[in-house]
Amino acid sequence: MRIKEMMRQEKVKPWLLQARFGIEKESQRVDLEGHLAKTDHPDKLGNRSFHPYIQTDFSETQLELITPVSDSAEEVLATLTAVHDVAQRSMPENEMMWPLSMPPALPEKEEDIVIAKLERHEDVLYRRFLAREYGKRKQMVSGIHFNFEYGMDLVRELFQVQDEYKCTEAFKTELYMKIARNFLRYRWLLTYLFGATPISEEGYFVDEERPNEPVRSIRTSPFGYVNKPDVQVSYASLDQYSEDLAENVAQGRLSEEKEFYAPIRMRGGKKVADLFHTGIRYVELRNIDLNPFERIGINQEAVEFIHLFMLYLLWTDEKAPADEWVETGNKINDEVSLEHPNHQTAYIEEGRRMFAEMQEMAEELDLPVDDQITNYQEWLEKPELTLAARLLKADEAEGQSVLGKQLGREYYDIAYAHPYQLAGFAEMELSTQNMLFDAIQMGLEFDVMDRSDQFVFLKHGDHKEYVKNGNMTSKDTYISPLLMENKTVTKMVLDQAGFRVPLGETFTSIEKARRAYPRYAQQAFVIKPKSTNYGLGITIFKEGASLEDYIAGLKIAFKEDDSVLIEEFMEGTEYRFFVIDHQVKAVLLRIPANVVGDGEKTIRQLVEEKNQDPLRGTHHRSPLELIQLGDLEKLMLKEQGFTINSVPEAGQQVFLRENSNISTGGDSIDITDEMHESYKEIAIAAVEALGAEISGIDLIIPDKDKPYEDKMDYGIIEANFNPAMHMHIYPYAGKGRRLTLEVLHLLFPELNK
Amino acid sequence: MRIKEMMRQEKVKPWLLQARFGIEKESQRVDLEGHLAKTDHPDKLGNRSFHPYIQTDFSETQLELITPVSDSAEEVLATLTAVHDVAQRSMPENEMMWPLSMPPALPEKEEDIVIAKLERHEDVLYRRFLAREYGKRKQMVSGIHFNFEYGMDLVRELFQVQDEYKCTEAFKTELYMKIARNFLRYRWLLTYLFGATPISEEGYFVDEERPNEPVRSIRTSPFGYVNKPDVQVSYASLDQYSEDLAENVAQGRLSEEKEFYAPIRMRGGKKVADLFHTGIRYVELRNIDLNPFERIGINQEAVEFIHLFMLYLLWTDEKAPADEWVETGNKINDEVSLEHPNHQTAYIEEGRRMFAEMQEMAEELDLPVDDQITNYQEWLEKPELTLAARLLKADEAEGQSVLGKQLGREYYDIAYAHPYQLAGFAEMELSTQNMLFDAIQMGLEFDVMDRSDQFVFLKHGDHKEYVKNGNMTSKDTYISPLLMENKTVTKMVLDQAGFRVPLGETFTSIEKARRAYPRYAQQAFVIKPKSTNYGLGITIFKEGASLEDYIAGLKIAFKEDDSVLIEEFMEGTEYRFFVIDHQVKAVLLRIPANVVGDGEKTIRQLVEEKNQDPLRGTHHRSPLELIQLGDLEKLMLKEQGFTINSVPEAGQQVFLRENSNISTGGDSIDITDEMHESYKEIAIAAVEALGAEISGIDLIIPDKDKPYEDKMDYGIIEANFNPAMHMHIYPYAGKGRRLTLEVLHLLFPELNK
Repeated sequence: MRIKEMMRQEKVKPWLLQARFGIEKESQRVDLEGHLAKTDHPDKLGNRSFHPYIQTDFSETQLELITPVSDSAEEVLATLTAVHDVAQRSMPENEMMWPLSMPPALPEKEEDIVIAKLERHEDVLYRRFLAREYGKRKQMVSGIHFNFEYGMDLVRELFQVQDEYKCTEAFKTELYMKIARNFLRYRWLLTYLFGATPISEEGYFVDEERPNEPVRSIRTSPFGYVNKPDVQVSYASLDQYSEDLAENVAQGRLSEEKEFYAPIRMRGGKKVADLFHTGIRYVELRNIDLNPFERIGINQEAVEFIHLFMLYLLWTDEKAPADEWVETGNKINDEVSLEHPNHQTAYIEEGRRMFAEMQEMAEELDLPVDDQITNYQEWLEKPELTLAARLLKADEAEGQSVLGKQLGREYYDIAYAHPYQLAGFAEMELSTQNMLFDAIQMGLEFDVMDRSDQFVFLKHGDHKEYVKNGNMTSKDTYISPLLMENKTVTKMVLDQAGFRVPLGETFTSIEKARRAYPRYAQQAFVIKPKSTNYGLGITIFKEGASLEDYIAGLKIAFKEDDSVLIEEFMEGTEYRFFVIDHQVKAVLLRIPANVVGDGEKTIRQLVEEKNQDPLRGTHHRSPLELIQLGDLEKLMLKEQGFTINSVPEAGQQVFLRENSNISTGGDSIDITDEMHESYKEIAIAAVEALGAEISGIDLIIPDKDKPYEDKMDYGIIEANFNPAMHMHIYPYAGKGRRLTLEVLHLLFPELNK
Repeated sequence: MRIKEMMRQEKVKPWLLQARFGIEKESQRVDLEGHLAKTDHPDKLGNRSFHPYIQTDFSETQLELITPVSDSAEEVLATLTAVHDVAQRSMPENEMMWPLSMPPALPEKEEDIVIAKLERHEDVLYRRFLAREYGKRKQMVSGIHFNFEYGMDLVRELFQVQDEYKCTEAFKTELYMKIARNFLRYRWLLTYLFGATPISEEGYFVDEERPNEPVRSIRTSPFGYVNKPDVQVSYASLDQYSEDLAENVAQGRLSEEKEFYAPIRMRGGKKVADLFHTGIRYVELRNIDLNPFERIGINQEAVEFIHLFMLYLLWTDEKAPADEWVETGNKINDEVSLEHPNHQTAYIEEGRRMFAEMQEMAEELDLPVDDQITNYQEWLEKPELTLAARLLKADEAEGQSVLGKQLGREYYDIAYAHPYQLAGFAEMELSTQNMLFDAIQMGLEFDVMDRSDQFVFLKHGDHKEYVKNGNMTSKDTYISPLLMENKTVTKMVLDQAGFRVPLGETFTSIEKARRAYPRYAQQAFVIKPKSTNYGLGITIFKEGASLEDYIAGLKIAFKEDDSVLIEEFMEGTEYRFFVIDHQVKAVLLRIPANVVGDGEKTIRQLVEEKNQDPLRGTHHRSPLELIQLGDLEKLMLKEQGFTINSVPEAGQQVFLRENSNISTGGDSIDITDEMHESYKEIAIAAVEALGAEISGIDLIIPDKDKPYEDKMDYGIIEANFNPAMHMHIYPYAGKGRRLTLEVLHLLFPELNK
């Protein structure tokens, strides 16, 4: 194949950077002092027999975090970060992930290293075999396995510009075999740049030969976790590779195929033999050490460089017969891995040539490469910039294990700083973030189909579900949310079903509504748009209204909708009932933005103090919003005889808003357990009358402690088809209610709580 | 009760005009020559044993049209008009409704008047009894029964400003008893104004005494359909009334209660005895003749006047003891009914007083009364304005039966002029109008909950359903339309399920999309907004695009959405498959606005000619839109070397638009029967993959006659969650597909087709 010529084709070029990525990352669980955890794999993470994202590797303490396959570096790192968040927040509070590839000090006794307690007996047996064959200690090292696949369109276009291969499978296999050989030849560059295991801790090497530490990478050196030297496999062709592997197994040098610890693996089927049918689909790079300076062990620059490196491996010609080429690469890597981190590498000239060729390739192929090449080129010249050297420097200052503990704590704090967020998805709605957190924790497969549209795909076994906005699911009918969206229709349905709803009328013009003025002038009433959310356009007149105010209220409402409702105002307190699956799972009281005085601080100071709450933020990115001190708040204070500089008495509650929306700084108070059962039954029955499975229904109740007796004891204001969940999960006061979990259990009843 | 004082209360006044109305209207079915129909009640109207709106009265030819109860005159007349439309369009094409209260010439032989063929034997027996007792001929007269109820709030407020009655039921009964007595006393005014049976046709009076025709109202005169004189009932109290009725039945003067043909009936229960528990809920006025000059036999002015009249009956004091008061009224009515239509009434002075009092009442109570009083006041002075006089005048010109035939034909033509519309609901979407038509025809109870929101309630027995936009129902899940709304997500789901969808990408900014330009520059592709309908914002590049055009297309799409798709353009013809309940019920080909030349007319003339089609209109009020000759069309012509004044050759098809949307004048062509089954199966399976019950899915098919073999034989463009139905029901060419009926059968499977 004249690959360079193929890659230069105009039809191919637009697709060159198309690729798919998947990352598996191991980490040892340790306590906050950096000692290997003594606990079992966290219960909260559900069943390891199917969990797609959080598994255990060799030992019970060794987490294996797995991302779904992604189309971009951003996405694969986002999901890895999310899985990290979930893993960390599912562990006991006094545990964290050890950020280094090299394990912390290992126990003296071999039996204190506990093999992963997996359900399938064969999995345990295999680990016992490994423990016998290689010792437990070497298995405790952690790293990143990086799965890489060339884009479907790229492969298709490449296939179309050649005529040597007639079927795509054979073509792909040939491509990936070349990549594998070149990777083995040139991987030393990754070892040089990203090697990050310069020093071993106590208990790692016992009774054995050990490297002359510090080195660049113990893990990828001959002292790492490698097969015995008699295991030899040729990469000349897939046939030869497969035959050699089979022979090694037949001769008992390997217990089974997967015991072959090559730095690169050809993937596509369960067994190597499957690859003849499917072709090689992707490769797994296994020689990346954890970058301890990154919370998730790797960063975007590295992923993008590895991506370019993979293109370079395709681009550059092999310069020796297969076995010789690979053998040379292995030798160079062995050398480089054992070099002193601060020293220039012996292969700097080859490195320079490679960077120059990469640069040349990028230019010839019009690749939009920014600093991916030049940055690492600098590392080649300045070994002190490499990860191993940075780690060594820290070790010389206060010891590698102290650094591991410090960094681990830092990452631990980040994971807990915004417990209502899911890292990697923080721009999505909080409810969706919470649901994704729960889904990952439970072990549901997930795919965010559309971030801006909050569209999520979930899967367990063959059972597929789609969720939008955290609560829109297949369990509700199409018509029911439409009923709830239209407040006039909602009232008609509830009224006909015998519930108390505010009496009132709907108007389609200010003129028509003006004629009805005498009916409302003298009573408490509300003007509101027919279809709106977030309380927009609503005016409440608690003691009737002048015609002028009445018209003003109408104008505000008509800005939001063509139809406007005028309703009696019902006295009492408004509560939000979250109903799902015919049960009330949360009841919330929302009270307007307020502060409580201490007799010393001014209102401004009290607001500042209250706004320190980490649950408060802006733009719905937090469960509660910051209290503002704008014109509306100042006016409200003025009406009560205050300014922002007034000092309220101790215990005096001062309201800054009339409306109780969380979005304007209101407080959310969970009172699920305090609400009388009889009102919960009304909420459930009303939601049933609307035919809904999930609804946030607002009831006015004058006395929540007095059992319901007659219709005047409550009134239903409205039912919300897209009810906020985060305000129940993270209330200002009272118990949080994990509603996203309720939604997931409604969708996947087969996953018992 | 000091009723005037009560009505003057400020709390009461805003509610005075609140009322509920219901109309029952009889009509004889006749052929287009005005002869009594010989056919049975139309099959299409379903089962009379439950039909809520279209029944038969005494004879098989006598339709009884019944409206649901409505809150306003507009609404009750709208529904009556709708029921009219349905009844007319369900009858054989050579039948119409006789517009007069007096039947057309009746058959010589009594047995040729066929008693209604009802299912329940007791109903038939009762009619046989009536035939024996009163003769069949008198039963053939038709009229309007007008049900009237004071508004709930009005009654509540009146109740609250008095303290004589402690319970609402007794209070209401007392109100309505007063109304009844005053009605009987003053009803002569309605007879004067609205009497419209001056003359009988052949065969109505035989062997009997007959009035001295012309009169004002045979029907409400002693020669009308009345009880024997020995049936006497007092209206002094509900007790007395009930007792007298029972006594009449006991003595055999009446076969049962319902044989009592009073001009007003007290309603609220099935039997009069029930009224003691429920109170009187409303009254039924039975003395309104059909207004032949109105298609539906009554108009809004009359309803509003009757409404005012009912308020006046409440307002005005009774001036004699009950029985005397009623007796006087009966006598006066007998006299007035038999006066010559062109003569002044003998009771003109009382009439003047009544009008003056009504005026006074309206002023005192601030009733927003426009011309309701003064108009009819003029009729009092000028008898030639009354309905009877106008009818007589026409009779003198060419005979009453000729007029009946003419008017009947006129109303017949109106009912068929816009068969795709439902009168009374013509401002709603066509699909909803069609569905309401079908629902009324099938005998489903309906309530339009929100006209502007196309929200409809349907009911059969205890089975309730809600429908929005004609196709949004409880049968679909909430998530499925959301999947379809998001085109990116739709494609992901279909792709994963193995269907062919256009390859492509989604972009969230012009900048990101610009970088992808090289991937599309040389191929056929489409740019479209992620979520849109009606083809807005879509640009097609069939032969690649310059960067400039590419950016221009992106800008157009980004105007409609934050996310934009770029997709391969698939060659072939686009078809819309309407899938419901796992079946393809319609396949439509849409072709762009076009004309076909005849070698003589200019393009402008051809467009004008094509626009004559009654199916073409504007603003989606018709199944097809008028073809425009705007800038876009002129540009399109110019590109083909035409102007609007060019004369295309005979048979030459000239396109005026690139896009095939119906909304820009395109033609809809039904090809359901021509489409190969294999593509229908794909459409069904794809809709199933999306989890939808109802969807309009668009497939590109290069050759619809060639059975599907492999994925390149089709492509799925998009699936529509709110697919238009009217274009399938009334296509430009091919067979219409009654999809609204399919929706109703999906919702109500118990109603077999």
